[in-house]
Amino acid sequence: MYGLIGRMTAIPGQRDALTAILLESLGTMPGCLSYIVAHDPADDHAIWVTEVWTDQAAHRASLQVPEVKAAIARGLPLIATFEDARATAPMGGIGFR
Amino acid sequence: MYGLIGRMTAIPGQRDALTAILLESLGTMPGCLSYIVAHDPADDHAIWVTEVWTDQAAHRASLQVPEVKAAIARGLPLIATFEDARATAPMGGIGFR
Repeated sequence: MYGLIGRMTAIPGQRDALTAILLESLGTMPGCLSYIVAHDPADDHAIWVTEVWTDQAAHRASLQVPEVKAAIARGLPLIATFEDARATAPMGGIGFR
Repeated sequence: MYGLIGRMTAIPGQRDALTAILLESLGTMPGCLSYIVAHDPADDHAIWVTEVWTDQAAHRASLQVPEVKAAIARGLPLIATFEDARATAPMGGIGFR
């Protein structure tokens, strides 16, 4: 499995709108086993996204899905900063689709 | 919902053993919606744990579950470092139990 842990900040006042966009296209991502969007209680602008995919290829392919591309296009203007996403190798757990 | 994102390192040669311990007691944690144990490909000793709970109280209660207490007791000697876990407020996604 392939995982990502990333943190971004929304431009002021747009965290909820950005969160909604991130959550919209989730149904259309083959190979996505877990995708969790969370707010950072310590920063009103910050969003954490933690993901698990069957493999890195599935993640890459998802970026070409029309709905995902459309969501990215709408979300990008609302993003102030991206922290480097950390790649992970999920070994197991609970709460996979 | 209440979430945690944490990173720890195992003492040399013990990452797999620590991972196994972390994964062992997962079935016994009421209120745990997601608990993913992942290796850090960039560091042979590092483990990421990302968690989602119904609420913080469920997470706290889990630490009193006998199986979890036993796993913690066996795991602690294998842990070299703990980075501060980041609390999150999960807003949604896919892959919740």
